Amino acid sequence: MADYSSTRSDTVAQDETRSLIAASKVEGTSVYNRRAESLGSIYDVMIDKRSGKVAYAVMSFGGFLGMGERYHPLPWAVLDYDERQGGYVVDLDKQRLQNAPSYGVNETPDWSNRDYGRRIDEYYGVPRGGI
Amino acid sequence: MADYSSTRSDTVAQDETRSLIAASKVEGTSVYNRRAESLGSIYDVMIDKRSGKVAYAVMSFGGFLGMGERYHPLPWAVLDYDERQGGYVVDLDKQRLQNAPSYGVNETPDWSNRDYGRRIDEYYGVPRGGI
Repeated sequence: MADYSSTRSDTVAQDETRSLIAASKVEGTSVYNRRAESLGSIYDVMIDKRSGKVAYAVMSFGGFLGMGERYHPLPWAVLDYDERQGGYVVDLDKQRLQNAPSYGVNETPDWSNRDYGRRIDEYYGVPRGGI
Repeated sequence: MADYSSTRSDTVAQDETRSLIAASKVEGTSVYNRRAESLGSIYDVMIDKRSGKVAYAVMSFGGFLGMGERYHPLPWAVLDYDERQGGYVVDLDKQRLQNAPSYGVNETPDWSNRDYGRRIDEYYGVPRGGI
């Protein structure tokens, strides 16, 4: 059985490091704003089946022991990973987050409705599709 | 607090349905070959941080109660979702899968090495990057 898990490149000069991250690692990662305030953590990742692109990261926010918790879909494009903080940084103050599109833990948004994604994209000022 | 979770479009004619799927839903989904033989199930999804594209789905395969289990990264592009079977279909016979790049449960492939991904892409005959 072929096993390439420990294979190293023979060429020293790599054009660039390909940066891959497991979805399971993204999930649970903290999200901060630019003031280093904690906003929540990534709960799930929404993949566009056709393009294979991650369109939204769903952030869980607020609540205590699951009560009052809400999910905020954030366009993937607005998330910057910050090595120092060990989490994603979004340019978003708490007030703006509270008014952002969100849904409760017992709700399921209609992701098949393009208008739903469009509202998220518009709120965060990213191009349509968020991708 | 804004809530768009139950918003429906006013326009009846949608150009196309945007098809989004949660990574948490992809995980655990069965994978079959074209003979409807079960090959395994999706264990994780590898995201290219720069492009935001899903590059690989990692399929767990074989083993019993975790023993002898191996992970096979499959380029996202080779996976077709089949509604009828309720799983992904890959054009891959079992023999070819056994010789495919894989790693053990206690191994971690060097995803930062572009050659690792390149070997996977070459094995499955997809363009470099798999995306």
